[in-house]
Amino acid sequence: MENRISLVTLGVRDLARARTFYEALGWTPCGNNPGVVFFQANGMALALWTTTELAKDAKVNIAPRAGRDRPFGNVTIAYNVRNRRDVKTELARAKKAGAKILRPAETAFWGGETGYFADPDGHMWEVAWNPQWTLDRKGNVKLPKT
Amino acid sequence: MENRISLVTLGVRDLARARTFYEALGWTPCGNNPGVVFFQANGMALALWTTTELAKDAKVNIAPRAGRDRPFGNVTIAYNVRNRRDVKTELARAKKAGAKILRPAETAFWGGETGYFADPDGHMWEVAWNPQWTLDRKGNVKLPKT
Repeated sequence: MENRISLVTLGVRDLARARTFYEALGWTPCGNNPGVVFFQANGMALALWTTTELAKDAKVNIAPRAGRDRPFGNVTIAYNVRNRRDVKTELARAKKAGAKILRPAETAFWGGETGYFADPDGHMWEVAWNPQWTLDRKGNVKLPKT
Repeated sequence: MENRISLVTLGVRDLARARTFYEALGWTPCGNNPGVVFFQANGMALALWTTTELAKDAKVNIAPRAGRDRPFGNVTIAYNVRNRRDVKTELARAKKAGAKILRPAETAFWGGETGYFADPDGHMWEVAWNPQWTLDRKGNVKLPKT
């Protein structure tokens, strides 16, 4: 891995409410993606996505449980790679380093390749190849405008 | 707020273990700060800090409880501002947008100014002024080398 983060995704209960909140803070969404809100944040991106979808995507159970008003974690960090095959390579490296593989490399519903691992403290990382996003030489991410 | 993230801090149980893990992934720490590990990640930074210290800093109780092996959240996102007084301003804006103020603006032990708020889903944001960190015109962060 290079020293970089492509995307931080915050799990939210109510996407409209979360979007309104971040817009009130001064954040401007990028594009119009149903079910998810992206913000370009200099060389990376911030996303709002429902906790349910986020958990399903990472193949983990972070749904709220009785007596717990908020699920554990609820945040993923994505590291985008330049080639589809790099997803598998980075996940293998993470496993060797002691990560728990949550989801092996596979084709994502949005057309790229994705996989997830958890670090020793349970922080969830996605390794993703997204042909619709631009990565510059230094790995800075540029979201598509639409 | 501008569309940017200055720092993502992951709460960890064992700092040495976490550092070893991230180094094995390929990450290179920046500087030598006792009790915390920083990584320059293009225009932002990633930090590893103990959950205990992180919780204390945000003035929240995220310590592990009986029957729960991992605390809630355990991640903070920092938004660094250009002037000390901006910390107060941004926290006031967040409060107006519906955030819960976790820690009002005050002088930080590391010499700057800091405050925390939680978004509607409980995600913790720090607003910080750190005179030792460089912010470029676009708000990209540059860590000091030592």
